[in-house]
Amino acid sequence: MTLEELAERQREFIAARDWEPFHTPKNLVMALTGEVGELTELFQWLTPEQAARAGADPDLRPKVSDELADVLLYLVRLADTLDIDLIEAANAKIDRNEHRFPAAAGRAALRRVPKD
Amino acid sequence: MTLEELAERQREFIAARDWEPFHTPKNLVMALTGEVGELTELFQWLTPEQAARAGADPDLRPKVSDELADVLLYLVRLADTLDIDLIEAANAKIDRNEHRFPAAAGRAALRRVPKD
Amino acid sequence: MTLEELAERQREFIAARDWEPFHTPKNLVMALTGEVGELTELFQWLTPEQAARAGADPDLRPKVSDELADVLLYLVRLADTLDIDLIEAANAKIDRNEHRFPAAAGRAALRRVPKD
Amino acid sequence: MTLEELAERQREFIAARDWEPFHTPKNLVMALTGEVGELTELFQWLTPEQAARAGADPDLRPKVSDELADVLLYLVRLADTLDIDLIEAANAKIDRNEHRFPAAAGRAALRRVPKD
Repeated sequence: MTLEELAERQREFIAARDWEPFHTPKNLVMALTGEVGELTELFQWLTPEQAARAGADPDLRPKVSDELADVLLYLVRLADTLDIDLIEAANAKIDRNEHRFPAAAGRAALRRVPKD
Repeated sequence: MTLEELAERQREFIAARDWEPFHTPKNLVMALTGEVGELTELFQWLTPEQAARAGADPDLRPKVSDELADVLLYLVRLADTLDIDLIEAANAKIDRNEHRFPAAAGRAALRRVPKD
Repeated sequence: MTLEELAERQREFIAARDWEPFHTPKNLVMALTGEVGELTELFQWLTPEQAARAGADPDLRPKVSDELADVLLYLVRLADTLDIDLIEAANAKIDRNEHRFPAAAGRAALRRVPKD
Repeated sequence: MTLEELAERQREFIAARDWEPFHTPKNLVMALTGEVGELTELFQWLTPEQAARAGADPDLRPKVSDELADVLLYLVRLADTLDIDLIEAANAKIDRNEHRFPAAAGRAALRRVPKD
């Protein structure tokens, strides 16, 4: 399934429940924050070693999977309401990053440039 | 392009720069927070009406597109390091939501249930 | 009670439970994100009018108060572990903002400068 | 200076610039998210050891101090617009936590209870 098909499934789900009025850009950005907060809570007290094994932990894996899903769903919904193609935007960003961070520069570049 | 192909493109980009040591689950969750923060800053002072038109605003649209891309890229990367299939997780979540929020109940259900 | 006294009360609470090892800067920054996420969830689906009345709503007020408290507690704890005086830092920031945003310029300045 | 006095200083700063219309609860919650995002970006790629020394790092300390100030300022402003006393709320929360997490139980309690 593509992201476009996922967005279409969401559109039908939301229309069937009459939820469009709630899905304004500001509300969806806030919902995204809420879900990233829930995802963060799963990792905050873990040691780096425990966090590295989270995908293989039978208790944590379904919880993490569920929160990742929530983040994706609000992200896809927000992009859909703004008529922005996420895959196209992500590829354009990697294209730019390939110029900003030439491969040879390696880790040093990451240290110099504090954010994407 | 599918999310799996996007994840593969990222893997190559990161390997070429020797950035894997930075991409621990805790660091990536934090990077996701940073990008959602940048996305939020684009919307925080807009009126609901201005926010609703953000996708059509020639100044805002590329900025929003860029931040949405960053959120997607860290989300895909995080899921990839945890070996979790985002599309499968998202569909499983909608499946569950179809039971939690029957279509007939409409908006009332949203009000009763505080979070997804 | 001052923030310094609140930080001291927290220090005793945490020491009595042997929680210091968990309170690393990265973990506390993540905990702050989690709490801001919970606070955001209380407001995300409210209309601007409902949100404006949240402090007077008998159901919402204690929930909002509780989440604001959690954000403050992790913020104070994080500053304490880094030996940074929050009140001093906040006043220094307002001092700088008084120069960045001269009072006469009014709202126009907010529009030009996208973030604090 | 107390938090109440800081809130009063902010009130005057904001009134002098005619910014009250922007400071709705939803906008301030979003601004808080933006600032926590900026704070997180300072820590996201640091090792736990680097993060533990952030308060003593001559380059990082002023940046961290500045972002902590921004988080406090929006938190105090949000509480002020909702007429909630942050210090009282924080003490009420610690009172409850003293019952939820008896001191003798120690770290085990933290592991069992996923969030504050």
